[in-house]
Amino acid sequence: MAGRETLEELVRLQGERVRGLKQQKASTEQIEEEVAKLLKLKAQLGPDEGKHKFVLKTPKGTRDYSPRQMAVREKVFDVIIGCFKRHGAEVIDTPVFELKETLTGKYGEDSKLIYDLKDQGGELLSLRYDLTVPFARYLAMNKLTNIKRYHIAKVYRRDNPAMTRGRYREFYQCDFDIAGQFDPMIPDAECLKIMCEILSSLQIGDFLVKVNDRRILDGLFAICGVPDTKFRTICSSVDKLDKMSWEEVKNEMVGEKGLAPEVADRIGDYVQQHGGVSLVEQLLQDPKLSQNKQALEGLGDLKLLFEYLTLFGVADKVSPFDAGALGLEDLEPHPELSLLLSPQISFDLSLARGLDYYTGVIYEAVLLQPPAQAGEEPLGVGSVAAGGRYDGLVGMFDPKGRKVPCVGLSIGVERIFSIVEQRLEALEEKVRTTETQVLVASAQKKLLEERLKLVSELWDAGIKAELLYKKNPKLLNQLQYCEEAGIPLVAIIGEQELKDGVVKLRSVTSREEVDVRREDLVEEIKRRTSQPSCTC
Amino acid sequence: MAGRETLEELVRLQGERVRGLKQQKASTEQIEEEVAKLLKLKAQLGPDEGKHKFVLKTPKGTRDYSPRQMAVREKVFDVIIGCFKRHGAEVIDTPVFELKETLTGKYGEDSKLIYDLKDQGGELLSLRYDLTVPFARYLAMNKLTNIKRYHIAKVYRRDNPAMTRGRYREFYQCDFDIAGQFDPMIPDAECLKIMCEILSSLQIGDFLVKVNDRRILDGLFAICGVPDTKFRTICSSVDKLDKMSWEEVKNEMVGEKGLAPEVADRIGDYVQQHGGVSLVEQLLQDPKLSQNKQALEGLGDLKLLFEYLTLFGVADKVSPFDAGALGLEDLEPHPELSLLLSPQISFDLSLARGLDYYTGVIYEAVLLQPPAQAGEEPLGVGSVAAGGRYDGLVGMFDPKGRKVPCVGLSIGVERIFSIVEQRLEALEEKVRTTETQVLVASAQKKLLEERLKLVSELWDAGIKAELLYKKNPKLLNQLQYCEEAGIPLVAIIGEQELKDGVVKLRSVTSREEVDVRREDLVEEIKRRTSQPSCTC
Repeated sequence: MAGRETLEELVRLQGERVRGLKQQKASTEQIEEEVAKLLKLKAQLGPDEGKHKFVLKTPKGTRDYSPRQMAVREKVFDVIIGCFKRHGAEVIDTPVFELKETLTGKYGEDSKLIYDLKDQGGELLSLRYDLTVPFARYLAMNKLTNIKRYHIAKVYRRDNPAMTRGRYREFYQCDFDIAGQFDPMIPDAECLKIMCEILSSLQIGDFLVKVNDRRILDGLFAICGVPDTKFRTICSSVDKLDKMSWEEVKNEMVGEKGLAPEVADRIGDYVQQHGGVSLVEQLLQDPKLSQNKQALEGLGDLKLLFEYLTLFGVADKVSPFDAGALGLEDLEPHPELSLLLSPQISFDLSLARGLDYYTGVIYEAVLLQPPAQAGEEPLGVGSVAAGGRYDGLVGMFDPKGRKVPCVGLSIGVERIFSIVEQRLEALEEKVRTTETQVLVASAQKKLLEERLKLVSELWDAGIKAELLYKKNPKLLNQLQYCEEAGIPLVAIIGEQELKDGVVKLRSVTSREEVDVRREDLVEEIKRRTSQPSCTC
Repeated sequence: MAGRETLEELVRLQGERVRGLKQQKASTEQIEEEVAKLLKLKAQLGPDEGKHKFVLKTPKGTRDYSPRQMAVREKVFDVIIGCFKRHGAEVIDTPVFELKETLTGKYGEDSKLIYDLKDQGGELLSLRYDLTVPFARYLAMNKLTNIKRYHIAKVYRRDNPAMTRGRYREFYQCDFDIAGQFDPMIPDAECLKIMCEILSSLQIGDFLVKVNDRRILDGLFAICGVPDTKFRTICSSVDKLDKMSWEEVKNEMVGEKGLAPEVADRIGDYVQQHGGVSLVEQLLQDPKLSQNKQALEGLGDLKLLFEYLTLFGVADKVSPFDAGALGLEDLEPHPELSLLLSPQISFDLSLARGLDYYTGVIYEAVLLQPPAQAGEEPLGVGSVAAGGRYDGLVGMFDPKGRKVPCVGLSIGVERIFSIVEQRLEALEEKVRTTETQVLVASAQKKLLEERLKLVSELWDAGIKAELLYKKNPKLLNQLQYCEEAGIPLVAIIGEQELKDGVVKLRSVTSREEVDVRREDLVEEIKRRTSQPSCTC
């Protein structure tokens, strides 16, 4: 530090010399020389400690949305919201954080991923982990027993996400839920219908919806001889069957979790099955499973669910996924199969879903990977939507434990955003990020005031209009701006046009120009830019 | 605790007795008696300590949005976004939290209101305090020198808000900013035009836009003899002139902040003035102020600004606010004045704005309180929009300090939400919270499957449709549901309709029913519910 202090002292003295020279009105050369010495000394001191050095980044696991990414996001949200509204949903919103205790005991092991706020005095708060628990809190708090709502918002998980696959620490969920006591499986079927409608409309490729029921899994574990205390952990092993072979899963059950090998084998016989409604019927005849009350209820409901899904046109009467008909694990897309694959609901006994609060039917939609095109990055496949029935969650919040049965679904849009973004990039498709209809321009100088007057007239008439923020812009620059921003029209004024009471309206693509009477300009712009995409 | 332990032991023993009695196949009466004793003992123990007692609330300063409140929110956002798009803005989004150091040193004294996240390992994070600093970080990070964007998102301040006046700890900001090096005051004028367009469209009453310039204030302080070190604190005293009398403000300056009384008086002569462009011209002739370089620049720009605002139709050539013409502090709305008040831009030398980062023109829009109607709560008045020029903020993030001049505005929508909500309540206006066009119904039993088929047909054709989730709902209940939810049409099927290939289409308000051929149903529903409000 002594050396540094000496340097600092030198800088100070040198600085004083420069000021002294200035006062003596020394030659510029002399001053410059002294300033150079000063700067050299200052450089030796290293960066100024007082000045802050910023790390220019967003927090880990988060991202900004550029205008182009926002265009994708809005397109995807439009499809999703359109579907939610088609099914008569209302919309709610809740705060981004909740009292910490509201989230406590809802997510099992995943609770460690919750973001807590710093204790700055006052309440202890956490960022929401999903939209389901805040929804249940909302229902209990407002004593609602009956609502169909959607909620689109960001949720927060301190995960270690693979961002290339569209996984983040801050990410959107699009939730639709039906709360209330109704006749069995009607709302459940509607949730699955909605999931299929949205995934089809988004055109992100073939998908498969796996369906199961918590009660069937619990019943199955019971008849196979799994001890009660091991239900949850064995359940999470079963859930890995989409990524691991049965041998590996069995090893985990027996080796790590201490299950008897014959118990594991019995489980294996069941959970490796998947199919359509005929598998449900087959299991209803299963001598052991049909003796278990829970499993029987689950199977009965699934049978009804398939019936309703058939009426909704999203499950065939004879499913292509009937047990044995197809080996789903080696699914290779080929033309015939892709015909078979729509509609595509599969009863999959290995589907378990992590979250603690599910009580009945559960489901998950996965994208089926298309064959990787030459030179194309293979898209990350995996779950893009999921949900199920949770009849006990609202009761956890109600002071008297009153239950409100609920069923819902959540669309995981981040992965969908990346797929759509990647597709747009591959197509090198030009995405407009503004909706400007016309640029107010001039070829001559000194017409800023006239441009301001005209653009204001257009704004007041509801026309989307811009002008360059320059006093005397070149016409070429103005036309180039239109090309880059995709603005279709230019309204050009000059001395002559002003005298004649007209505006020269130019089409950017065809370069055609016509004189339009100023009083007709608004109508003409509206006529030329009316959107054929309007579906009202 | 000893007493409690004894009680617990009693409960345990009693429990064992009940189990023992059960094993002995004791009479139901005996068991019931023992169970009653058991329950009584348990009640004495008080609530189970292991069970969690929830506080059912949202965190302090936050709120849920009900479907009705969401309807208001969407209506307000539609107006604002429509205006932003009309002016050619792109849209971006940023994460809800930033690195803590990104926010450091940007908000002066207000920094204590920033929410920090708990240090759970990894980066130190804070919730965003506004959208301006994240915008500047975004520009610097992406090396952008030129963009016109809007951003609508929630921001977070650990304030003690008056929620009745629409102030919260979690609240929305709607920001529009223009970044880039342009000819003076053209983007600034557009920001004020946008502010006026939005506040007029929202129809929330008369408003006043106050305009000033940081350079005029700084110049004014300099010529009045305020020491450099006191500029900021004297600035914040001046800012209080909208709530306090000049005498009180002067007392603060002299008593608390140690300013010489004659210096304060000199300031007072200036900052109590407000008016239109003629006040600008008057001050340009002021012998002292016109000698100050900064003030001169500010006044020159304001003159230009008023010129452009006149061309935009939001400032009169002869402003009703010309100095002395009106005493604004005793503004009492009366018919004539309210004519004068539109358009309404006032050069107000007392406007100072808190945030550190402003460098040039600053502005703030306040609502002018309408006369309180009999029995009506007086609405909270105050700032509903604000903004200004901040040419130095992006440079604080750029490693090389490169400047990107910016100007922008922020609409404070929470207060607007409360005004619109209150107005709707006062009018007892029925707000629809869904868009459902038709309910699929039946008067007869056993037609669930047919209802499911029909509603699915409608969904697939893009019709917004619902059905009751009951196997055999009563027709009356179905009609009542339509009345409550504001659904205009009912599609009724019965045995006869199915046989005839028709659907009975009923108008809920007129109760008229007609048979429509099933293949014409979609077109007929579309025809009957086409929205005349569509402005495409």
